[in-house]
Formats: sequence, structure tokens, C-alpha cells
Amino acid sequence: MVSAAKTSSEASPIRLGMVGGGQGAFIGAVHRIASRIDGHYDLVAGALSSDPDRAAASAAELGLDPERSYGSFAEMAKAEAAREDGIEAVSIVTPNHVHYPAAKAFLDAGIHVICDKPLTSNLADAKKLAKLVDKTGKLFVLTHNYTGYPMIRQAREMVGKGVLGNIRLVHAEYPQDWLTEKVEDTGAKQAVWRTDPKQSGAGGSIGDIGTHAWNLASFVSGLETDSLAADLDSFVEGRPLDDNAHIMLRFKAKGKEKPAKGMVWCSQVAPGNENGLKLRIYGTKGGLEWTQADPNYLWYTPFGKPKQLITRGGAGSGPAAGRMTRVPPGHPEGYLEGFANIYSEAAMAIRAMRRKKGKVPKDVIFPTVEDGVMGMRFIEACVKSSKKNGAWVKV
Amino acid sequence: MVSAAKTSSEASPIRLGMVGGGQGAFIGAVHRIASRIDGHYDLVAGALSSDPDRAAASAAELGLDPERSYGSFAEMAKAEAAREDGIEAVSIVTPNHVHYPAAKAFLDAGIHVICDKPLTSNLADAKKLAKLVDKTGKLFVLTHNYTGYPMIRQAREMVGKGVLGNIRLVHAEYPQDWLTEKVEDTGAKQAVWRTDPKQSGAGGSIGDIGTHAWNLASFVSGLETDSLAADLDSFVEGRPLDDNAHIMLRFKAKGKEKPAKGMVWCSQVAPGNENGLKLRIYGTKGGLEWTQADPNYLWYTPFGKPKQLITRGGAGSGPAAGRMTRVPPGHPEGYLEGFANIYSEAAMAIRAMRRKKGKVPKDVIFPTVEDGVMGMRFIEACVKSSKKNGAWVKV
Amino acid sequence: MVSAAKTSSEASPIRLGMVGGGQGAFIGAVHRIASRIDGHYDLVAGALSSDPDRAAASAAELGLDPERSYGSFAEMAKAEAAREDGIEAVSIVTPNHVHYPAAKAFLDAGIHVICDKPLTSNLADAKKLAKLVDKTGKLFVLTHNYTGYPMIRQAREMVGKGVLGNIRLVHAEYPQDWLTEKVEDTGAKQAVWRTDPKQSGAGGSIGDIGTHAWNLASFVSGLETDSLAADLDSFVEGRPLDDNAHIMLRFKAKGKEKPAKGMVWCSQVAPGNENGLKLRIYGTKGGLEWTQADPNYLWYTPFGKPKQLITRGGAGSGPAAGRMTRVPPGHPEGYLEGFANIYSEAAMAIRAMRRKKGKVPKDVIFPTVEDGVMGMRFIEACVKSSKKNGAWVKV
Amino acid sequence: MVSAAKTSSEASPIRLGMVGGGQGAFIGAVHRIASRIDGHYDLVAGALSSDPDRAAASAAELGLDPERSYGSFAEMAKAEAAREDGIEAVSIVTPNHVHYPAAKAFLDAGIHVICDKPLTSNLADAKKLAKLVDKTGKLFVLTHNYTGYPMIRQAREMVGKGVLGNIRLVHAEYPQDWLTEKVEDTGAKQAVWRTDPKQSGAGGSIGDIGTHAWNLASFVSGLETDSLAADLDSFVEGRPLDDNAHIMLRFKAKGKEKPAKGMVWCSQVAPGNENGLKLRIYGTKGGLEWTQADPNYLWYTPFGKPKQLITRGGAGSGPAAGRMTRVPPGHPEGYLEGFANIYSEAAMAIRAMRRKKGKVPKDVIFPTVEDGVMGMRFIEACVKSSKKNGAWVKV
Repeated sequence: MVSAAKTSSEASPIRLGMVGGGQGAFIGAVHRIASRIDGHYDLVAGALSSDPDRAAASAAELGLDPERSYGSFAEMAKAEAAREDGIEAVSIVTPNHVHYPAAKAFLDAGIHVICDKPLTSNLADAKKLAKLVDKTGKLFVLTHNYTGYPMIRQAREMVGKGVLGNIRLVHAEYPQDWLTEKVEDTGAKQAVWRTDPKQSGAGGSIGDIGTHAWNLASFVSGLETDSLAADLDSFVEGRPLDDNAHIMLRFKAKGKEKPAKGMVWCSQVAPGNENGLKLRIYGTKGGLEWTQADPNYLWYTPFGKPKQLITRGGAGSGPAAGRMTRVPPGHPEGYLEGFANIYSEAAMAIRAMRRKKGKVPKDVIFPTVEDGVMGMRFIEACVKSSKKNGAWVKV
Repeated sequence: MVSAAKTSSEASPIRLGMVGGGQGAFIGAVHRIASRIDGHYDLVAGALSSDPDRAAASAAELGLDPERSYGSFAEMAKAEAAREDGIEAVSIVTPNHVHYPAAKAFLDAGIHVICDKPLTSNLADAKKLAKLVDKTGKLFVLTHNYTGYPMIRQAREMVGKGVLGNIRLVHAEYPQDWLTEKVEDTGAKQAVWRTDPKQSGAGGSIGDIGTHAWNLASFVSGLETDSLAADLDSFVEGRPLDDNAHIMLRFKAKGKEKPAKGMVWCSQVAPGNENGLKLRIYGTKGGLEWTQADPNYLWYTPFGKPKQLITRGGAGSGPAAGRMTRVPPGHPEGYLEGFANIYSEAAMAIRAMRRKKGKVPKDVIFPTVEDGVMGMRFIEACVKSSKKNGAWVKV
Repeated sequence: MVSAAKTSSEASPIRLGMVGGGQGAFIGAVHRIASRIDGHYDLVAGALSSDPDRAAASAAELGLDPERSYGSFAEMAKAEAAREDGIEAVSIVTPNHVHYPAAKAFLDAGIHVICDKPLTSNLADAKKLAKLVDKTGKLFVLTHNYTGYPMIRQAREMVGKGVLGNIRLVHAEYPQDWLTEKVEDTGAKQAVWRTDPKQSGAGGSIGDIGTHAWNLASFVSGLETDSLAADLDSFVEGRPLDDNAHIMLRFKAKGKEKPAKGMVWCSQVAPGNENGLKLRIYGTKGGLEWTQADPNYLWYTPFGKPKQLITRGGAGSGPAAGRMTRVPPGHPEGYLEGFANIYSEAAMAIRAMRRKKGKVPKDVIFPTVEDGVMGMRFIEACVKSSKKNGAWVKV
Repeated sequence: MVSAAKTSSEASPIRLGMVGGGQGAFIGAVHRIASRIDGHYDLVAGALSSDPDRAAASAAELGLDPERSYGSFAEMAKAEAAREDGIEAVSIVTPNHVHYPAAKAFLDAGIHVICDKPLTSNLADAKKLAKLVDKTGKLFVLTHNYTGYPMIRQAREMVGKGVLGNIRLVHAEYPQDWLTEKVEDTGAKQAVWRTDPKQSGAGGSIGDIGTHAWNLASFVSGLETDSLAADLDSFVEGRPLDDNAHIMLRFKAKGKEKPAKGMVWCSQVAPGNENGLKLRIYGTKGGLEWTQADPNYLWYTPFGKPKQLITRGGAGSGPAAGRMTRVPPGHPEGYLEGFANIYSEAAMAIRAMRRKKGKVPKDVIFPTVEDGVMGMRFIEACVKSSKKNGAWVKV
């Protein structure tokens, strides 16, 4: 039941750097754990904070060589590119507006990039980045981490094999409650930048979690969104970015079938919801349901038959999920393992590129810069539609 | 823990008639059971089918006096009004297009009406019916039966008391799967009339189950819908009425608060969903979640505190739910008991009208003809919005 | 999906009497609702309380003819047997110690008996009653009501067909919390008699709920208990009867197979448990799990395949459950419907006896006086084992 | 919400060795991931298999210096103790019968031991080991990994603070299904040694998973077991060790309170159960329920109040759980993180011992050699009781 594959690549770690993720950050620690779980990476350099003191203190805490703790990503890209033992890849875990300049600096320096989502703070930057990735031939891995959950891979495989028949409906939602009150006024770091258009871009909840929901819907269903109608709100007085979004989706047709429809809801003001990401897909032959908080389960509902609960590693779970599985069924894996799966896929790709001059194996799957561009299109379409009173807008 | 109130009214049953509900029907049997559970009614007359043979056979099966088994509702209204022991109330459980003429006949004959939803097959009829109810002073009870569930009463009471603070979000959904394939072509009676605009009216899934979801959202939240944007589909080839609907809602403001928003989804083509009616409401202080398939539970999620699971009859369950409760917590009540609660509320009202010349006690609550008119407005607004490519339409 | 059978027997109700169940009682109201749901019975006589005033008031509330409201069960048995329109069956819903004399009186008078469990307050009475039933040829229906749940019938059918292979394990539990504190000292009627050996017999929780759990385990598994080891406790200071019991079971062998083993736990002092009756059965080919609080679901876990959730009325649900089903899947039925199923089975049997001189149809299944005797053996074996420090005792 | 503590100790890893855990093993990979998650350890040496080829291949795969891949644990203990950069701690992840000699070798060599459970293959060895630990003053950490789950720490903290009042009942169960058929005959490595008394000791399911359940019950309740009655079975023909056990427990009294009682069930032949470890504890004031498959939730049921669902990192979750938490509530942590928590506690202790000459901080908690001895007592008592037909046996 247990994937031995995880063990086989524990040898010869990839040299990794990090931008952002210093003391007080949340997602930086997640990236570090994710990079460690399968033993593929060594964190050896960092520009961990824009505040020099915090950067140094953070580096010391992580046991980095002080020489490789940098004051800025620009300095780091230059210095590491010049070292023989320089980093092979960098993780960018800053607020959104830094993604573009940082990614550019490392790509230009010939270093692979693993970057948090959303890709950038606006679509124009996103497009420039996509071009740059194409030009440099370097890897660009976007950490839409939920695509790393084994049962999400399982769902994608089932849809791809036609188990559900023609897809008619895709429902995704991502409710949270942590911005129910105006916590950004208390100085809470996570809330401050996420509600600030200068650091986050045009989307609030849409950019932070709505993109995750929509990306997951696209990843599993394999459908492209044609257009959407969105109704965005800032329920908390004086909050400049949306903290709730209601969205209706129309997908592009596949063959002669009626095109699928969908709904997305994301919210940061729905009390009782911690990270309630949920995906439901229905086709002519059956349905699937998955919830992030209970990620080891996938409901499969073949039409006219009893519902089945497929468990990670259990009966009915196929090869796509098996590649992402470490421990036997009934021993839950979680958020960090799902995140680690993205890092491990990236490692597979980076090693393949070393060996084979750029050819990533077919079964290695991770979100790319193109997915990031699509995410930015989604955000901008939502904002545009909402400003036009919910009119349908092409994505 | 057990409500003694149920026992106190077992005496002196109300004389009841029924229109529709003969052999092969589904909802007629439900109404009959609902009317029996608390012992408030005696079914003594019927026009059970438009097919005379089926009407007679059905009446015999139910043990009706053959003399009081009628060939048409018109005949029945006339004859029963003329009897000294004639029916005091009638249940109308036909396809939608018969609701209006049948209700009119009984109201005109001075007989109270208990009628299935949606109120009529079009808004014009609905308005006429409302005027007639007003004019005759008779009771009109619309069986939006889900409003009879104890935990729905509990939720409504909590919202009304301000436990959730100002309401920001209302999400209702009602997915089913029984029309995933084109069963109406097999002659299945339930499917045939529900997919036929002549019998159902302009709404398919919207009229059959969407109205239930929206009615419940309104009943619990106490909010009025200002406008909506809808995207209706008939996924099954050649089906003239919608079998899926995506709807965004905007509610009217209450005081100075930002007006609430909402979403409604109903579907008859979502495999794995039997009768998946679900309601979620979020305010500034907390949230509530309820699912029809597991109706004895109500999740209450006060912001910043652990989630609480309130159970029917258990701790935290208040008087509004208590009135609707027969057995101790942990002994589940279900759909039929919820339906019976509407019948029992109607019985309380009918008896009160006998005693007090028309005054219904304050704590007796049931959906009225006005709710029916609102439901028809909702259906027509959905159809209109969808035809206008999802434009926002006033309800 | 909906059983039409329920409708077919609404005609010609059976004349029913009741002993016990007056004001302040709990289970009497449950029996009355259960008798009404499918329209099989008319309650026409009663000896509703041993307190004459309460008996009269209760009868008036229920609309009984005052002439047929009796001061004692003895008087009622005699008078009703003498009437041409006398009752055909009686429901006995008193504390345990009254079961035997009351049942005897009605059986002797030629009246069928529907009796609450446990059968009597001691094994000797139980055996005498069994002989009397045999001698009189009257029906005796014991309301082990949980056997009336559709998914319990489904489980029994699956086990009977060998779907689980050879049964190895049977686990049943019935935790409650309502006697966590010494409520009997507050005068609470339900608690007072249940903790009084004179009214309850030798078993406390064992008799009140442990018998239900064990009966259900036997009913579904089809296994006979060979012996048991029990550890009974009265956790609440000064309570004379057990409020918690731990029991290990050994079943009799079937053929050459190793005999199955089991565990039973019942408790009235486990906070958070309302009526947590749960049954789990495991065989060589698969398992089943069912919980009373969520009775419309049955987990079926075929070994080596994904878990399946069978729903009442849904796919995978067979004829045994279908006979017990009124409304479509997803519309929950509950405790009262399960109870009503026992009453309806009894009605089928009573009608069959009228028509066919005593022959009850094969598919009509209900707990009998023999099940009641077995239940008394179980209670006495538990008490005996516990007194002998948990030694294994034959049942 | 997120514990920053995890970051603070990422620096200066502890040098770790491993005995067992080569290719084809399961638990070795789990230990390695657990050791990596928080960055506390560097795996630098190993005697990974008793088969020299497999040992070498496994070492290479893990990137170990070939010089530090040893042919036996004895050789490894000697060589590493002699190196200036020798390992500070060793993980022993072999079948049970090797635990004792291996642990002895490393303790004698002055190296801390992290050892899988059960402690040894018999009680005599266990006692000798406990003496040796005492004599050498080295750390001995037993990986009863379930004690590392945050919500288990939360439960323990709540019980310790008296939130449940006096404990009356403790129910633990650990059902699995993987030995439902005789897989050991197929050569499956995991099954072969677990069903072999020479490698496992006297307990089958009791030693493999029963000890986990009982250890967890003891850890959370803080209660000592006085005696037990056990009924062990080998349901699969020809299997020499138990694959199912039913156990009744009596705990030692605390103060004047009636002593608590309990039940333990473990099984390897219950189809549909993957790793169904579950713990329920009830006291005079409330109850707790926790399930390993859904470990981020803890049900808290205060008597007379609505049930509460406490989530890891969420409201109601206290400091003991907080120390064990990495990511925000709603982002699930799982089995590997729970296991990692034991490794991190061990790291805290090892570092403290370096700094403070042996003094482990009070809030650092992990299972010790004493817990291991208790576990062996439990196994032997179960076997003894079962042989004496379930007689009560002192633990």
C-alpha cells in the first residue's frame, strides 16, 4: 500500500533558496516543511525578510550560513548564480506584489522558481513572466498546493478516464471566517497585506482563496472557463478588497456536449468555516465530492448505484493517487503532505532536467506559470464583472 | 423533553377532503400520513384522480364512503359545502396547474385549503388566489413542508433573536439526481408532469425544488429578496424545462447594515444527491448550517468559539423547536414529522378559527398564500433573468 | 421508490386498546403515533393510568368514549371481551412489572397483545407468558422497535443471504447520558421507575437499553448467544440498579465455522450520548455498520472494495427494506416510522389471522414472546455473571 | 494560530542512526519522514537490514556515507560510539524481538534510543531494559506515536484539569481489516513477522495495535489499570497469534471515587476498518471522543450542554495542543505530523540534556521505557486472562 517511490529519491538533495518567509510569516514555514518531508531539498540560502534584522535573525534560526543570508532577492540571485554550489531553485513566499520582480530576478539568473500563488498582482506582470519562463527554459512551479492532495489526483484521473461521463456541473467553494471582524486594524501581519490592494493586487478573497477553488475546479474537471458573472463584496466596513465573492461559471463546450456550468463561492467572513475548500463535480454517469478538511476521502457516486467512499491508499484508489501516498489507508495525510507533493513533483522535474536536458516525465504534474496566468485572468474577470453589475465576462 | 402538546389535541378530529393523491401518486400519501400522525384530521372525502376508475379504486382503498368519492373537485366542493358534516378543510395535492382552479372552488365554498407548492402555475393566478383568500377569510396553508422541521424553527428563532448578529450571507441548495437521464420518456408519472410546462408552469427544477430552497432561506433569515441573477439549464436533451439552476441573490437592506447576499443552487441532474436540501446562514456573530437529510442536527458556529451541534430536543434547543418535537433527542424525527408539523399548525389555526372567529395564535406558524405569491415571483424572476442572459431582475 | 403497500391497508382499522400511557408517560404517546401513521388502528379503549383521575383526564384528551375508559386492565379486559365491537388488540405500555399480569388478562380474554419490552420483570413470568401465548393462539408482539428500521431489515437480509460470509464479530452498544446525575431523586417519573427494582426487575440499563442492543445484534446476525461475561456498575451513588454494563459475548457455532464473538456496551451515564444505539457486524467477506441516530444509512464494507453507503430507498436497498419504506431516499424516516413498522407488521398479522385462521404471512416479521423470553435470559445472565465477578454464564 | 516554536529549533540537527527500516519495510520510512518534518535530525548512519545486500542498497538510496552503513547493530553501536561525529541517537524500527538486543547495544554505547513499540517481545526483557535505561541515564523514547496527535494532547490536558469531572468510563478500540484473509501465506513481509510468535512475542493484534489503544487510554485518562478480563481469538485458521481481542478493564480508584471501568477492542479481521483507532472517555461532568482517521477534531460533550467540536488550532484548543500544531485550523495535519511530534519532543529532550546535563523540560512529553514495560504487562495479562477463560488478571 505504501509508495516506495518516496524513499528512492531521498538521496542527493537539491540546493534551495527562499525569498520571504522570515519570522512572523506563515506560508514560509509551510514551504520549508513541504520541502523537507521527502528529503529532496536542502535549504542553503535566503532573503527571508525585507527588514534586514529580521532577515538575519530568521536565517540564524534556520541554521543558514550567514554569508548566504541576503538583504534582498536581487543580491541573492546575483550572488548565488555566481557560486559553484549556488542554489538550483528558489521558493518565493512573499506577498503577491513581490512575486513578479523576484521571479524575474531568479529566472534571469538561470535558477528554477517555485512561487506561491496568485502568480502576480496583475495580469500584465503575469503575461510577462510567462514569456520569461518560456524564454529562459527554466522550471516555474506555482504552489496551488491543493492539486497535490492524493484524492484530488484520484478525482482528476477518474474524470479523465470518463468515469463520470460528460461533465455537466462543477461546484467549488472556499469559505473561511478569519476576516469576519476587522483584524487588519489590529496589525495582524497576515490580514494587513491580504487586505491591501498595493500588496495583494485587485483581488481580496478572490485572489487569496477564490483562485485556489477555481484552479482546483479546472485541474480536476479538465474544463476551460469560457465566461463568468461575479458579485464581489467587502462586508467589513472600510475594507478596500473583497472579502466575499459569488460567481457563476460557464465552461467551454467539449465536442457536441452541452457546455458545463458551475458556481464558485469564496468568503473570509463565514463564521465556523476554517479552510472549507470543497469541490463537487457531476457528469452524466456519476459524481465526485471532496473536502479539504477531510482530504483522505473521496465520495464517488455512480448514478443508480450506492455511494462509494474511496480512501487514500484504499481499494478503488488508482495510480495517480498512489504516486502521492506515503502511509497506509486510515492513517491520515494532510495539508503539509499535499504541499510536499508539489515540492516532490518539482524535484522530479528538476532532476529530470539535470539528466535529460529539460524533459519532464509525463506523469510529473504541477501547476505552471500558465496556470498562474489563467488565475490572474480569473481574478481580473471577477473584478470586471462585479464592477459591471455582474455581467458575463470572458475569462 | 417530549412535547405533551401533541397529545392534547388528539381529540375531535377535523374533517378533511383531498384533491389528487390517488394510486400512483407520491405526495398524496405523504399528506395523508402527515395528517394522521398527530391525530388532528379524519379524511372523509376525496376527488382523488381525474381518471374516474382510479378515483373510485383509490377511495375504496382508503376506506372512504363511496358517496363521498367525487369525480371532480368542482362536484366535491359543491356537495361537501352542502352537507352538515361536510369537510372543513381540503388538501390539494395535484400537479401545479390544478392548484388554482381547485383552491378557488373550495375557498368559494367556504372551505379551508391546504395546498402543495408551488402555489400555481403562473404569477397572475397566484395573485388572484391571494385576493380570494383575503376576501373569503378562509385559511390557506401552503405546504412548504421543510419549514416544519424543528431545527429549522430553531434556526429561525436564533436568527430572529439576533444570535448571528447582522446577516451577511445566505446559501441554500437543493440538489437531486433522479432526472439525470430522460426518465420522462419511460412514462414515469412523477417525471412526466414535472417536465411538462403545461402542468408545471414556467419552472422545472426551479419550481419543484428551487422554490423550497429559496422559501426556506427566506423563512429562516427573515430577509426579503431584492433581486436575483439566474442561469437556468436543461442539461437533458429535449427537456423543455430547466433541470438545473444557478442563482445569485441580493437581499434588501435591514437598517444601516450592508444588505446580505446569497446563492441558490437547485438541480435534478447531480448524481449522488437524493434530496440534498441544505441551508447555511452567516452573520457578524456566527453561523448556522442545516441539512434536510440529517434534520435533527443544527450546527451553530459562534464566531471565535468552538462549533456546537444542537440536536432536536437536546440542550440548546429552544421553545420554537420544542413545539415541533415528539420524541427525545437521539431518536430521530424525519420528513413525515416535519410535514405533519405543518398539518398540526394548520389544525391549531382551524380550531382557533372555530373558537375565536378567525384569530390564529401568534406562535402558530405556517406558509401562507402570500409566501406562495412570493414563490411565484421568485420562479418568474429566475426565468426572466435567465432569458436575459443572467441580468439582475427584481423579485 | 415509494412503497404503495402502505396505502393499501389504510382501510378498515383494527380496534385497539391501551394499558398505561396516560398523562406524563413517554412511550404511550409513541405507541399511539406509531399505531396511527399507517392508518391501521383505531384507539377505542384504555386503562391509561393506575390513578383514576389521571386515567379519565387522559382518556378525555384522547377523545375516548368515557364508557371505554377503564379503572384497571382487569376490568377493561373483561368488559371489552364482552362487547361485540370490543378491541381486537391491546397495547401494554406500563412499567415492566405490570407487563405480565396485564398481558395475561388480555390473552385470557382472547385479545391480541402488543407489549413494550422487556417482556416481564423476571424470567419465570416470561416463561409462563410464553406458554400462555402458545396455549391461547393469540398474537404477541414485543416492541423491540429498532427491528422495524428499514436499514436493519436490509442488514438482516444481507447477512441472511451470506453477503458478509461467515460472521466473526458482532458489536452492539447503546450509550445514553440522561442518568449521569441522580435525577430519580428529583421525582422525574421516567427515572424513578427505571431505577426501582420493584418496577423494573433485576436489570437497570441492561433491561432498559441493553436488551435492545442485544436483541438487535441477534436479530440482524441470526446468531444465538451461547454465553456471556458481564461487568455491571451503578456509578451513581445509591442507585440500586446498574447504570452501565460491559459485556463480552460468545455465540454458538454455525456449522464448522469458528463461533463468532461479540461485545455489548450499554450506559446511562455517558455524557453526550442521547440514544447512541449502534450495531457493527463483520464476517469473512465484509462488514456492516448502522447507527440509530442516523437510521437511513447503512455502511456496507465489502472486504477489499470501497466502502458503500446504502440509503433507505436508494440503490442497493433490497425488498426487506422496501417493505418498510414510505418516502423516497434523502427524505429521512425516523424513530416513529420504525416503531410504526412494528405496528404495521402486527396489523398484517392480525388481519391475516382474521382471514386465514391464524396463519401469518412469511415476510411479516416482528419480535415475539420467544424473543422476550430470550431477552429475560440475557438480563438474568448478565446479572448472574456480574455477581460472579464476570464469570462466563450460559444464556 | 501557528506555532512558531517549530521554526526555532530548525538549526543544528541531531545526528541520528537507524536500525532496520530498509527496502520493503513500512515503519522505517515513517520514522525517517517524522524525523525530517521539523528539521531536528540528520540521518547519518544505519544498519538498515539483516540482509547485507539490502542494507547496502537501502543506505545508498538514502544517501548515507557507505562507511556508515553497517552490517549489524552491534557493529554500528561500537563504531559510532567511537567516532567524534558519531550518532547521538538511534531509531530502532525492527520486528519486536530485535528491540531488546539492539536497544541494549546502543544504551551501553551511551547513545539515546528511539524505539518502536511494543517495547520487547516479552516482559522479562522489558524489565531489564528499564533497569538499563535507569543505569545509563540515556533517553529512551517509545514511539507510541498516537500520543503525539495535538487533539490527544488537548484531551489529556482537559482530563487533567478536571473538565470531565471524575472519570467513569474509558473505551478504546483499534479495528483493522488487513489480516481478514491469510495474507501471511502470500509472503507479505508485514504480515509474516506480525503473525509469528518468534518475532512478535506472545501478542498478535494485542501487541501490534491493542497496546496502542490501551496506551492511549492510559495516556489521556491518567488512570492506572488494576485488572482486566480478555477473550482473544485467532479467527483465521492456522494463525498462531490472536487477530482479535475483546477486553474489559477495571482501573484503580482515585481518591474516594468509584473506580472507572473500560473496554478495549482490537481486531485485524474487521472489514472496512483501516486504522480505526478511537478513544472515548466519560466523566461525571462530560465526555470526549476522538478518532485517529479524523485526528484534527475532538468532540467535547459537557453534560447538559450542546456538543462542541474542538478543532486543532481552533477556538477551545489549549496550549498542550498548541505546542504540537504547525498549520492553521482547517488545514489538516495527520499521522506523520503526529509521529513527528514524538520525534520533536525527543529532540527537545536530547538538546536539553546536552545543555543542562540531563534535565528534560516539564512540558516535553513522550512515552518512555516505563510505558513500554506497562505495555508488556498489558499484553501478558491479556494472554494470561484469555488462557484462563477470561478470568480477571492483575496488570
